[in-house]
Amino acid sequence: MSETILPASAAGATQRGPIHFYFDFSSPYAYIASEWIEAVAARHGRRVQWHAVLLGATFQAAGLKPPVDYPLKREYVLRDFERSAQFAGLPYRQPAQFPIPTQNAARVFWWLNDQDPALAVAWAHAGLRAYFNRGVALNDRLALQALAADSGLDGEAAVAAWQDPQWKARLLAANEAAIAAGVFGAPFFLIDGEPFWGNDRQAQIERWLSTGPFNGRV
Amino acid sequence: MSETILPASAAGATQRGPIHFYFDFSSPYAYIASEWIEAVAARHGRRVQWHAVLLGATFQAAGLKPPVDYPLKREYVLRDFERSAQFAGLPYRQPAQFPIPTQNAARVFWWLNDQDPALAVAWAHAGLRAYFNRGVALNDRLALQALAADSGLDGEAAVAAWQDPQWKARLLAANEAAIAAGVFGAPFFLIDGEPFWGNDRQAQIERWLSTGPFNGRV
Repeated sequence: MSETILPASAAGATQRGPIHFYFDFSSPYAYIASEWIEAVAARHGRRVQWHAVLLGATFQAAGLKPPVDYPLKREYVLRDFERSAQFAGLPYRQPAQFPIPTQNAARVFWWLNDQDPALAVAWAHAGLRAYFNRGVALNDRLALQALAADSGLDGEAAVAAWQDPQWKARLLAANEAAIAAGVFGAPFFLIDGEPFWGNDRQAQIERWLSTGPFNGRV
Repeated sequence: MSETILPASAAGATQRGPIHFYFDFSSPYAYIASEWIEAVAARHGRRVQWHAVLLGATFQAAGLKPPVDYPLKREYVLRDFERSAQFAGLPYRQPAQFPIPTQNAARVFWWLNDQDPALAVAWAHAGLRAYFNRGVALNDRLALQALAADSGLDGEAAVAAWQDPQWKARLLAANEAAIAAGVFGAPFFLIDGEPFWGNDRQAQIERWLSTGPFNGRV
């Protein structure tokens, strides 16, 4: 895995590179990770570069399906989503519609990211919490427009953004870059080129940030 | 998930039920978990009931494949196996042949388990360490016979056991019981009916054993 596949905007922004954090608005484990990644990064003098992607695209590239589409695994993960959120001290309510297509929420993310990455992160939190705490259907255009307005954005501008070929193309490019970087699920983290998959890699990420490689590589 | 699907031999053996630990001799994450599960159980006054199963059977029931059979995920897990072992402070060497069929090693496990579960646990450790530390091909009958002899067993009796319809049937029954209990991967743990999948659920298991349910269920 080469650093050259990482977004150019990330290079050299700080002495140590950012943590690249890949999420889908429909991923429960990405929701959980979204609530701790900034604090972990801050403890280690890193910043976080957030990437909204579509798991539909990464699953297709890897020949995978959503975990709830597999017998046996479905029952397990529906239980584990809630248990893992509560283990992390977070509210969680399994959405009735799950998973959902999240391209519009993701296009709004990239539209905001080009204005100010902090706005995009605030939108990511707003969308993930709305879906996993209150069951707001992010695939419902009216609900999404209302969420944008409630989040302090211009709701009509958000609608225009998700319909704009520019932001459709930006999301496609983000998916392609993620797949090229080896991303096949969410949450996914790239730290100095080292890949970590899953909310449950928090402890390994913390040690990596503290001590550097512990697997004899790099 | 009902307690009635658990093996009858486990019921009431201690005041609190055992931790059911499901593993395949070819699972790296089960190898890692096999090295901490007894200590975790002991800290909480539990015993561990080990179950050798075949992931080939549980994967088939769940429509899954080995993780190395998926593009992108393959490269990740080959890196993560080693990193996760080193994170746990364990030696690890990726076997050249991976994954391998492990029915003979598993039949020997069940043959020993009927004599004395402690013998079966010692065999589980011997097999997992041989494969993941030294690359001993457990699917090679001569290598497996030699490992049995090196482990203090009667090598010819081990060969006879894995060829015996009784222990073939015992392993089939173990697979069927595991699938009926919801097991679709390894390591898999059942504690008082609560399912935990993955070496990375150690922290949740510890909290569950300390405080009981934390997800508002049961």
